[in-house]
Amino acid sequence: MNKFGIYGKLVAVEGQRDALAEILLEAADVLQSFEGCIMYVVNISENEPDTIWVTEIWEDSEAHGASIRIEEIQALMKRGRPLIAAAESTRLQTLGGKGL
Amino acid sequence: MNKFGIYGKLVAVEGQRDALAEILLEAADVLQSFEGCIMYVVNISENEPDTIWVTEIWEDSEAHGASIRIEEIQALMKRGRPLIAAAESTRLQTLGGKGL
Repeated sequence: MNKFGIYGKLVAVEGQRDALAEILLEAADVLQSFEGCIMYVVNISENEPDTIWVTEIWEDSEAHGASIRIEEIQALMKRGRPLIAAAESTRLQTLGGKGL
Repeated sequence: MNKFGIYGKLVAVEGQRDALAEILLEAADVLQSFEGCIMYVVNISENEPDTIWVTEIWEDSEAHGASIRIEEIQALMKRGRPLIAAAESTRLQTLGGKGL
């Protein structure tokens, strides 16, 4: 199928993980109506106390780029940014599987 | 929603990544009929040449444990094991999002 995937790791400012997760779940709600987004799932880590992992699958990297220009997403990014201490991401090519 | 998630990283023996990915996609097919498995998606890394990431979401860790006892999964694990040079995993609590 060859979709564009991202594992996004966000380390929250101490004590702000749940507030940040809430904002990311709001982003997932906004993306419900955005066709280029196939998956946007928010997870917390069992072992890393301030860490959130976001599992993303997009039709292609252009769809991901377009999502960042959605006004509601930009507003959520503005709210979320002060809660983020560090961020990194792993870029993937999604081959297929169950649950897509 | 509080499901059990795993990011599984598999580093294939050199030259065996695609053969290993094929076996993992077969596992995803077997899991289509296993209710405790919500997601089992196979990805290759853009930057790490021999690396496969499997995104898994299960009803709970017991469902994951039960999947390993499925006869067809055991046969696939037996075929896949010689192709794996290294493995690690990140355990997650899945909160929710789009595409579940």
